[in-house]
Amino acid sequence: MYKKSWKITVLSDPAPFPAKRDIKRRDPIESSRRILLSGMKHFALYGLSGARVTDIIQEAGLSHRMLYHYYESKEALYLATLEFAYKQIREAELGLHISSLDPVSGMRRIVEFTFDYFVENPEFMALLSQENLNGGKFISQLEHFKDVQRPLVDSLEDLFTRGKASGRYRKVYDPVQFYISLSGLCYFGISNRFTLAAAFEESILSESYIADRRGHITEFVMQAVIGST
Amino acid sequence: MYKKSWKITVLSDPAPFPAKRDIKRRDPIESSRRILLSGMKHFALYGLSGARVTDIIQEAGLSHRMLYHYYESKEALYLATLEFAYKQIREAELGLHISSLDPVSGMRRIVEFTFDYFVENPEFMALLSQENLNGGKFISQLEHFKDVQRPLVDSLEDLFTRGKASGRYRKVYDPVQFYISLSGLCYFGISNRFTLAAAFEESILSESYIADRRGHITEFVMQAVIGST
Repeated sequence: MYKKSWKITVLSDPAPFPAKRDIKRRDPIESSRRILLSGMKHFALYGLSGARVTDIIQEAGLSHRMLYHYYESKEALYLATLEFAYKQIREAELGLHISSLDPVSGMRRIVEFTFDYFVENPEFMALLSQENLNGGKFISQLEHFKDVQRPLVDSLEDLFTRGKASGRYRKVYDPVQFYISLSGLCYFGISNRFTLAAAFEESILSESYIADRRGHITEFVMQAVIGST
Repeated sequence: MYKKSWKITVLSDPAPFPAKRDIKRRDPIESSRRILLSGMKHFALYGLSGARVTDIIQEAGLSHRMLYHYYESKEALYLATLEFAYKQIREAELGLHISSLDPVSGMRRIVEFTFDYFVENPEFMALLSQENLNGGKFISQLEHFKDVQRPLVDSLEDLFTRGKASGRYRKVYDPVQFYISLSGLCYFGISNRFTLAAAFEESILSESYIADRRGHITEFVMQAVIGST
């Protein structure tokens, strides 16, 4: 029984970061991180064209001058924000240590993690949606970007190899197709919950729906891969 | 082997309908249908606030005066468009006659149909995304809207009941949760193909990807429900 209490994080006007004076002067790594976190919120909400650099910098608690110390243009900041967003989820996945888990537990862990990450970080998926509306014009400019995703693809491939070898997995899927499926399962029921509630059941807007959805997805994927839950 | 040649339909500036003179005068059903089809394209691309009533009417080949003969405001037209979009997919599903198929063929049919429908009608999902950005403010005003979806939910429920009774289904899922999963599987790999291609494999932008994706989804769902393909 899954006990965690869920709240859907809604994208809304970003809450202000602590004021400028709280930041240690000349801490470039922390400053850069704050700019990128602030960029994620603003670009997710307003897209590249709608987001304002001054708002991003202000929320990061930095002076406007400082931005151009780090990034030469709004587009460069947007690109850096996209890459940062992906690095964050890929790093969090590495922290799961899937390769040290048995294949059945490992599969369950990556499914639950992906669902939780999408629920708790709505700006990640919103940022991706914005970039897809751009036709991927910017993300395709990132160099070595596929290398960022490599650890995820490798760890899924390893999971399927070990699962098959152990006799526990009924089915081996292409790791990229599998990850697209997992993402779609986790994303759609959250992103489209307003139309789904109007069309099917008002309870889709309730808090308990999130736990129900998580349970359904886990069962569905475990069935598709392992044939039992 | 799936042979159909696929092209991803891209949402772009709508192509003009045949000119006004091609429409039979005083055919209110046809006029209304043309307005709603035109509304789907424009609201999908620009949202409620961005779409222009004059453009919608012009593309439908009607005079501006006619719109207010049918709908009292842009909001009323938007609401009618949303309802029309759902009625179209629900009617197409009824045409599959799932209840007359054996449960295994019926499941395969609904999976393949849903994928094909999303690929061929990108304005349906784009319209829903726009309304979710509105927080579902308008769709929740539609009266008897859940009745429109009832035949789909009933037919999925019947499918699972027959599948279980026949011993062919390994697993019975809640029909609404199942349909949300199926929609997510079908939608995400298309809507997010630009970021997916940049992150994982350029081939995601190729035509053959659509057939691969269709095959993967069918296999994945059949495994989750039936335990074989």
